[in-house]
Amino acid sequence: MKFGGTSMAGIERIRRVAKIVKQQADAGHEVAVVVSAMAGDTDRLVNFCREASSLYDAAEYDVVVASGEQVTSGLLSIALQSLGAKARSWLGWQMPIRTIEAHSKARIETIDAGALTEAMKSGEIAIIPGFQGISQDGRITTLGRGGSDTSAVAIAAAVKADRCDIYTDVDGVYTTDPRIVTRARKLKTVTFEEMLELASVGAKVLQTRSVGLAMKENVKIQVLSSFTEEGVNYTADDLPGTMIISEDEMEESDMERQLITGIAHDKNESKITLTRVPDKPGAVANIFEPLAEAAINVDMIIQNVGREKGETDVTFTVPTNDLDRTMQVLDEARADIGYNRLISDSNVAKISVVGVGMKSHAGVASTMFKALADRGVNIQAITTSEIKVSVLIEEDYTELALRVLHTAYGLDAEDAA
Amino acid sequence: MKFGGTSMAGIERIRRVAKIVKQQADAGHEVAVVVSAMAGDTDRLVNFCREASSLYDAAEYDVVVASGEQVTSGLLSIALQSLGAKARSWLGWQMPIRTIEAHSKARIETIDAGALTEAMKSGEIAIIPGFQGISQDGRITTLGRGGSDTSAVAIAAAVKADRCDIYTDVDGVYTTDPRIVTRARKLKTVTFEEMLELASVGAKVLQTRSVGLAMKENVKIQVLSSFTEEGVNYTADDLPGTMIISEDEMEESDMERQLITGIAHDKNESKITLTRVPDKPGAVANIFEPLAEAAINVDMIIQNVGREKGETDVTFTVPTNDLDRTMQVLDEARADIGYNRLISDSNVAKISVVGVGMKSHAGVASTMFKALADRGVNIQAITTSEIKVSVLIEEDYTELALRVLHTAYGLDAEDAA
Repeated sequence: MKFGGTSMAGIERIRRVAKIVKQQADAGHEVAVVVSAMAGDTDRLVNFCREASSLYDAAEYDVVVASGEQVTSGLLSIALQSLGAKARSWLGWQMPIRTIEAHSKARIETIDAGALTEAMKSGEIAIIPGFQGISQDGRITTLGRGGSDTSAVAIAAAVKADRCDIYTDVDGVYTTDPRIVTRARKLKTVTFEEMLELASVGAKVLQTRSVGLAMKENVKIQVLSSFTEEGVNYTADDLPGTMIISEDEMEESDMERQLITGIAHDKNESKITLTRVPDKPGAVANIFEPLAEAAINVDMIIQNVGREKGETDVTFTVPTNDLDRTMQVLDEARADIGYNRLISDSNVAKISVVGVGMKSHAGVASTMFKALADRGVNIQAITTSEIKVSVLIEEDYTELALRVLHTAYGLDAEDAA
Repeated sequence: MKFGGTSMAGIERIRRVAKIVKQQADAGHEVAVVVSAMAGDTDRLVNFCREASSLYDAAEYDVVVASGEQVTSGLLSIALQSLGAKARSWLGWQMPIRTIEAHSKARIETIDAGALTEAMKSGEIAIIPGFQGISQDGRITTLGRGGSDTSAVAIAAAVKADRCDIYTDVDGVYTTDPRIVTRARKLKTVTFEEMLELASVGAKVLQTRSVGLAMKENVKIQVLSSFTEEGVNYTADDLPGTMIISEDEMEESDMERQLITGIAHDKNESKITLTRVPDKPGAVANIFEPLAEAAINVDMIIQNVGREKGETDVTFTVPTNDLDRTMQVLDEARADIGYNRLISDSNVAKISVVGVGMKSHAGVASTMFKALADRGVNIQAITTSEIKVSVLIEEDYTELALRVLHTAYGLDAEDAA
């Protein structure tokens, strides 16, 4: 079981978490719990580091910020004990959870879960601070923001858990953002691949890395809420959240599956166009090599036919956070690339329809294009993968597009307004 | 060097501490620094534990509260690095600092300072969270409130330090409380024994345990302030604070030493009298055995001559915090003890004159009694040790008594008002 920062924000909520955990232990399960820091605490600690020095040492940053989860681990253990359960905290260096040395963005290498498994077998609930481990030379490492999901999946794999329940402030994965589309439905199941596509385009329920790890280790994840009554009391036969499972299991469990699983949107992309780039071998490389060196993540790329012979327009998207840096890099590389104009537009949104079902069905993309065209939504760029079609549109049309597509793919809930 | 919670309260103060530490490192010293949590942080964490459960597990309490010093260790390392110094944090489990298993009130057993000493030799400043260690079974332990002074002395002994500078919010040890007696003088030197007597009667500059350990390990302590200019910039030839040293060193260094070193007061004692206790063998044991079992610390004990033959009145003092519990214990033991009346009085104060000089001089006590009698201060009880004379008086006379005695023993500063 994994509980995020909002579930751990304050003693009253930690008590509630203790009740949820105890209920599962009482049902006869061996339980390990991964916890985040109290909501806001990690920010407080990160800000301390920034104030102490703008160029802070990542190793010491790890020492500082790892303390947040240490606190909640101890407190949840105490809260569980006060309910009469056996519980103890296992810090990253105590198990240990070995990571690579990359401080503040480490990756888990190995988990020695021997003592932990023994303790769990004896009926003791194991409480583990998320987001942290220990390097080969014995110093605290952290996995980067949101790393607690990854910790939970890694622990679940290490103890060969039947299931990894990840508690957040939403009660599952929806067909699309329910704040925008009131007819959005909670999904009973979603595949790892779909979740990766949905997560990477803005449906921020789980950290992408954790889903990738779950897929690799084949760890079944349930996403559910610690704030609803269903999230407190449930049995393995009637799980309240959304299960994230492999495609094989999906095929067994859900014959009546929809073509499209969900529709995601991402407003944090910006579009950049370089006009009249020489249309010759190596020209495109001259654009994207300096961006790769600057660690800027380029997403959609479209090469348009140029107006003049021997020239072409190149359009691509980058995260809006990286827009200024991107413009600077391209400005400096102007001579090498040889473009005419450099144009940026942050007033765009990416809409993606995702579903493993589309592998075996044609027409998914054309349904999308037609539905949008019917409502006058202009498509600026298109990319596709095996289980996803994404289009770039003007940001102001985001909500309209989501509603139109949700209906077009037959995803609307029948009982909602 | 050791910095307390007020010195570490916030990034600005931590920067100031970094400057002080850097100055000593730049002077060519190898430096290890022990830090407390930010003032208020330990209280915050302790309250979390109490809220989580009134009967919290001390092992998990240790996990929670130890995080406060972990944070300040990391932050001081970052602040030092930003000044161009080499620095890193060494957590209790990293050195390791081994303690006994008594969670929340552990005692340091051994410190493996090998790697630490190597790092210091290479010019790296070692930052160590105070107040904590690791048990034999690899769990975090803490030394009890105020334990950081003890950590500092233990580390100083382990690395064979020339000196242990303990920074507090006062700039040294005074002949008496300068808030009460304006003519109080800062002492250049004081012996371990004197410091123990002064500390145990209310001059709360250092934790008593740390002084005892310093005496045992012969670690020279300097008490000084991180808030004054003298405390920032000084050399070994001109130390600004009060040195706490052994009696042997004192004799070498200070031939002109005063008879009395300081005068302490303690308002947190209460007086208890049992009247008409049977004057027979074992009667007194019947009083103090149940108190010892209840872990109540009895201080001054006076057995008065009884008014009736075969009976005696017994008076003693306990910390006012323990008064209610003491009364309860004695009430329950009434039949065993066989006293007539049980009387308590919390309106008392203990005044103690302390000085190694009094060992070789008679008349110290009589000077005290006469000076107090001259001003009409009634003495309710007296105890003496080799280097201390304590009297119990009515609490309202505390300030008067301190001023009178400070003058009577010739301690008044010449240049003060």
